[in-house]
Amino acid sequence: MSVSKKSLQIQKTYEALFALEDIREVFRQSLPTGFSPAEQEEFSKDLSRIKNIIAELESGQGKPSCNRIGKLDARTREEEFINIHPIQAAGRLTPEARKAVISYGDGYSTCDYCRKPFRLDKITRPPIEEFHQSLAKFLNMDQARVVPGARRGFQAVTQSLVEKGDSVIVSALAHYTEFLAVEVAGGVVKEVPLSENNIVTGEAVARKIEEVKKETGKLPKLIMIDHFDYQFANEHDVCGIGKVARDYGIPFLYNGAYTVGIMPVDGKKFGADFIVGSGHKSMAAAAPSGVLATTDEWAPRVFRTTQMVGDLTSRKFGVKEVENMGCTLMGATLLSMIASFPRVQERTARWDEEVKKSNYFLEQFQRIEGSRVLSQWPRKHTLTKVDTTGSFDVVAKTHKRRGFFFSDELKERGIIGEFAGATRTWKLNTYGLNWEQIKYISDAFIEIAKKYNLNVN
Amino acid sequence: MSVSKKSLQIQKTYEALFALEDIREVFRQSLPTGFSPAEQEEFSKDLSRIKNIIAELESGQGKPSCNRIGKLDARTREEEFINIHPIQAAGRLTPEARKAVISYGDGYSTCDYCRKPFRLDKITRPPIEEFHQSLAKFLNMDQARVVPGARRGFQAVTQSLVEKGDSVIVSALAHYTEFLAVEVAGGVVKEVPLSENNIVTGEAVARKIEEVKKETGKLPKLIMIDHFDYQFANEHDVCGIGKVARDYGIPFLYNGAYTVGIMPVDGKKFGADFIVGSGHKSMAAAAPSGVLATTDEWAPRVFRTTQMVGDLTSRKFGVKEVENMGCTLMGATLLSMIASFPRVQERTARWDEEVKKSNYFLEQFQRIEGSRVLSQWPRKHTLTKVDTTGSFDVVAKTHKRRGFFFSDELKERGIIGEFAGATRTWKLNTYGLNWEQIKYISDAFIEIAKKYNLNVN
Repeated sequence: MSVSKKSLQIQKTYEALFALEDIREVFRQSLPTGFSPAEQEEFSKDLSRIKNIIAELESGQGKPSCNRIGKLDARTREEEFINIHPIQAAGRLTPEARKAVISYGDGYSTCDYCRKPFRLDKITRPPIEEFHQSLAKFLNMDQARVVPGARRGFQAVTQSLVEKGDSVIVSALAHYTEFLAVEVAGGVVKEVPLSENNIVTGEAVARKIEEVKKETGKLPKLIMIDHFDYQFANEHDVCGIGKVARDYGIPFLYNGAYTVGIMPVDGKKFGADFIVGSGHKSMAAAAPSGVLATTDEWAPRVFRTTQMVGDLTSRKFGVKEVENMGCTLMGATLLSMIASFPRVQERTARWDEEVKKSNYFLEQFQRIEGSRVLSQWPRKHTLTKVDTTGSFDVVAKTHKRRGFFFSDELKERGIIGEFAGATRTWKLNTYGLNWEQIKYISDAFIEIAKKYNLNVN
Repeated sequence: MSVSKKSLQIQKTYEALFALEDIREVFRQSLPTGFSPAEQEEFSKDLSRIKNIIAELESGQGKPSCNRIGKLDARTREEEFINIHPIQAAGRLTPEARKAVISYGDGYSTCDYCRKPFRLDKITRPPIEEFHQSLAKFLNMDQARVVPGARRGFQAVTQSLVEKGDSVIVSALAHYTEFLAVEVAGGVVKEVPLSENNIVTGEAVARKIEEVKKETGKLPKLIMIDHFDYQFANEHDVCGIGKVARDYGIPFLYNGAYTVGIMPVDGKKFGADFIVGSGHKSMAAAAPSGVLATTDEWAPRVFRTTQMVGDLTSRKFGVKEVENMGCTLMGATLLSMIASFPRVQERTARWDEEVKKSNYFLEQFQRIEGSRVLSQWPRKHTLTKVDTTGSFDVVAKTHKRRGFFFSDELKERGIIGEFAGATRTWKLNTYGLNWEQIKYISDAFIEIAKKYNLNVN
């Protein structure tokens, strides 16, 4: 099978999916009693179109289609290429999530059977309430809510705990959304320095707390640290940090944007008061989605319900949670999380294998002289920062396409997701690639190196 | 075509969509060089399955499938029934949005070509930047951002403008999310009383402002009023309110959750400083999604960028907007909005026809003695509160299924979306139904009334 045959077949797959959506629309426009003659004709036309598409999908022969949706191109990157993009890997939908998104795409699709007390996480059909319980258990926490992205989980916590001028401990590798969450609550970030190998330790957190206490006369209100950071995906000492947090009586927010959904996360073990995870980054869910879990101790505060009373009507809106603004993910986002969840649970149990594949690839990668891994080595994660200043960047210096030569070479081999044009320090993620794909990209990197006469050990 | 044939065909449509997703997964697991023998076999098996499904879809004969996705049922309500649910009508996806959701479901699918300055609304491929400009223009405002639901738009505004103890003017029919947005910012709601026909007027707002001034010694910080409210969908005097807001120099947030995306909205005409709309309620987009638009005057405040500086690293995250927590809708939600937008623009221009259909249905409905429209009459909206205490509730009183008899009768006729069991006051929405469907539901209501010997005039 040639690459172009595969590419055509992918186009045809989309074409068939789209044609079926056209058929679905005929049903939507029709009466419960059945089709009108015009609708019957449209249905038949769409159907014969689909049959042709399926024939071309099977044979791999035919004219490539123009699968545009208005001004949008159909996105076929995940089918046509191996994608090593640093943040897209674990947010790719499972087939189950894609089916859920097809079924539950409509706006308020989760609300068909919403009954008292009228809150998303209490809905039993589809089994949203049950999912919330499973989520809490999955993280070994007491309660969980879904939120529109990890950042909204941070925000709910900072706005509940932090007042104007309060300090919040973050890592020197903190993600920008942690900065924003502190800022929006009126707080001030205090960064913990890294050890020489770019790790945040419990001791460093303790020292920073003492510094803040000395400087401001007050303890920080919150410690918010990533288990694995977004820059190097190094593992930070969350157990040690959790212990320090307990010693000082400061609540600890465990940022699991790069862990929840891909590796086992045990909130109690880490001593976490809050766990935040990202649906679209690590739980194979559509964006924006995420999870905020907490303990029974903190739930009344961060999940506090509305106290506002209408001055004229005396209206009160009972169980609606202030920081969540009531309901959060009313449709495809939540249902994609739910649909992916069984597979997400399975895959977290297979995390060691993912790390093994990551290390295998990077071992091959480091055979190319001048190529280095900047993240902690051996890897404990599939996201890695690499430095190719001494290898591919040397080629880029004299190549007429500059750094883009490397993107060109990768793309020609069916690999995408590197930061196009970057040949010095850049990030990649091997999460979810199978062994064949891992070996394929390993070979591809070596092959490109050899083509440009770089030394391969 | 019998109802059960249609139902089977709908099942088969989903079955085919799901089988194509299985094929898509084979591509995703394969190498750029092509299928392995095992993959080829899987592909062939899926393909022959699809061919059988298509044959059954065509003939309308075959065994109904079990289209479950784990614990989730496939949601076929929109295909199998006419849905008159009060809040689902205008959030149903267009076929274009459904195709976009299929293409862009994966987590960070919008981020393939994210380049400096690394912010969602600046991305040009897909044309997200252009969409933001179109959105602002569509609302006749200067700037727009997408947000995870209208509620998050309210919140961005209240948190930017309202401080602890400040008053915010809302309507006595304000939605609970407006209450929460005020509460989360530390403010206090002050409700404007309704006129005898349940309308909020400019004069009533002015009087309330004076009251608040007298009571608190300060002017309210914000006026937040729905153009059409969620209870009756009555039209409130937003032009008059906008004028009062200008007279007092108080910013005016126009809540367009029930207007933006279905009827023309002109921010300048209303004197709006902020316009908030809902993607999943009125813009045919997946949840959670929405829009927050403002003027060049207010943009620097509500869209202010981060000022937080790392105390250790001196890191700053330049253009990220604090209230939006950086990027907002990174995938299917935004792309569904964009894909629906051309059709959304068209349909807003056809709003009068939608109102005409709503009035037609309700005229028929009111022929059933004892049935009343509680919303303003004639209707200026497609969402309506009705009272059937004098008609269907009389039947319910002695029926063994109580109020559910009415749901049963509707469902038997292929109509859903009423609040199951409710036969006194309840809400319905005819938005987006075509004339055949409008006439069909009109006839169905009359038929049910006659069946139970209610008088029909």
